[in-house]
Amino acid sequence: MTDETPSTPSPRPHPLRNVRVVLVNPLYGGNVGAVCRAMMNMDLRNLTIVRPKWELYDEEIRKMSMEAYRIYEHAVICETLEEAVADCALVAVTSARTGLYREHSGSPREIMPQVLDVAVDQPVALVFGTEDHGLNNDQLKLGTHIIQIPSSKSYSALNLSQAVMVCAYELYVATDRFSPSVERSELAPSALRERMLASWEEALQAIGFMKNDKTDHMMFGIRRILSRDQLTVNDVKILLGIAHQTKWAAQFIPPAE
Amino acid sequence: MTDETPSTPSPRPHPLRNVRVVLVNPLYGGNVGAVCRAMMNMDLRNLTIVRPKWELYDEEIRKMSMEAYRIYEHAVICETLEEAVADCALVAVTSARTGLYREHSGSPREIMPQVLDVAVDQPVALVFGTEDHGLNNDQLKLGTHIIQIPSSKSYSALNLSQAVMVCAYELYVATDRFSPSVERSELAPSALRERMLASWEEALQAIGFMKNDKTDHMMFGIRRILSRDQLTVNDVKILLGIAHQTKWAAQFIPPAE
Repeated sequence: MTDETPSTPSPRPHPLRNVRVVLVNPLYGGNVGAVCRAMMNMDLRNLTIVRPKWELYDEEIRKMSMEAYRIYEHAVICETLEEAVADCALVAVTSARTGLYREHSGSPREIMPQVLDVAVDQPVALVFGTEDHGLNNDQLKLGTHIIQIPSSKSYSALNLSQAVMVCAYELYVATDRFSPSVERSELAPSALRERMLASWEEALQAIGFMKNDKTDHMMFGIRRILSRDQLTVNDVKILLGIAHQTKWAAQFIPPAE
Repeated sequence: MTDETPSTPSPRPHPLRNVRVVLVNPLYGGNVGAVCRAMMNMDLRNLTIVRPKWELYDEEIRKMSMEAYRIYEHAVICETLEEAVADCALVAVTSARTGLYREHSGSPREIMPQVLDVAVDQPVALVFGTEDHGLNNDQLKLGTHIIQIPSSKSYSALNLSQAVMVCAYELYVATDRFSPSVERSELAPSALRERMLASWEEALQAIGFMKNDKTDHMMFGIRRILSRDQLTVNDVKILLGIAHQTKWAAQFIPPAE
């Protein structure tokens, strides 16, 4: 035995500790409780709730969460989804709709290994919409990834806590075979990406690339293109620079006759 | 156009139509309702309930099943698990316990392709225990396969409907890549296997292979050995013949001094 304590670097936290489950405007305490239990079953701990529409019944949360009630007790409450995911490098939103941007969506099995890979050293979010309508377009567009859970063509609407379970389960199973990818520069957090995208929107309007009535639709596409490969902080700085320069150039466009 | 109706062979039913979810003594209507919804989400239709311990609250079933209430309306009610799975060629039981017979257990991802393969032309069962204690040993031993859902070492107890969802989801995803294996002789239904095993038990006791106090434990092992590869009807007939012959021989053993 020796008195020397070797100064080993402190071990990295487990990637699941960097995973945040975000519930947007949940309606029913029972579902929130069941989400807590599902999370605890799959070693997830961090719950963020974007402002519940009304008071959630604590009794129902307790009944369904069982031993996992403490996840609810430690939940973070936010006013907006933007705020809930501001520091997240990867934001995976769930949607039942397949649609325009299907190429950017994937099944939980496809997406969870990517989630895990980023969660090794940066926070990530899995975002679930309200029970009755899911996430709206403004919320969906904050996602770098869209998760679509395979389900029946005739009845595809999963209960909220079941959707969380399928994703949490896939994530947990993915940890089994997980080896993080090699060195990588820091990914851009959500707030920085959003600032860059807002700047691009201004720039593309300024140069007349988009008309007002098409802006939302076009920006959805732009957003996907720019989020396709995970953007690093440096990537975003370059993109911000482009937008800035474009706006500068736009001031010289002569007014239409 | 022609009046002739070509006599094509009727198409096989989809394998998921041969999958039966069996709930053993469920306690809460809300869970049964949530099971129905999870089943419908994953294109499962056949629910069997082994006698509920008491009246399930219909109101809770309705609330949680949503559009899937009709699965409950068509559910089969049985007195015993034996009866519920009597015609099933494959019986996959769920258990949180790892134990003596781990080599016969597997994750949903490992087992569901086998379930699907058998379900192409014979009924199969996925069996889930009561909320508070799961399946007891007598119920577990009816399984040809034991499913263990990967979950947290610190909190492994899944809600009943969540366990059903994970299994149903894995089954649904497995259908995607599914191509049934080639011709195969008919697998033995559960009731025939059980009759054979009872006969083996008598035979092994008769020849003094097992003492009374070790019988249950030994038979668990025997059961696994004989169920390892899926037994065909012909296999079981041969095994029945062996037991019969063994019992015949045992009558000649001289009584112990």
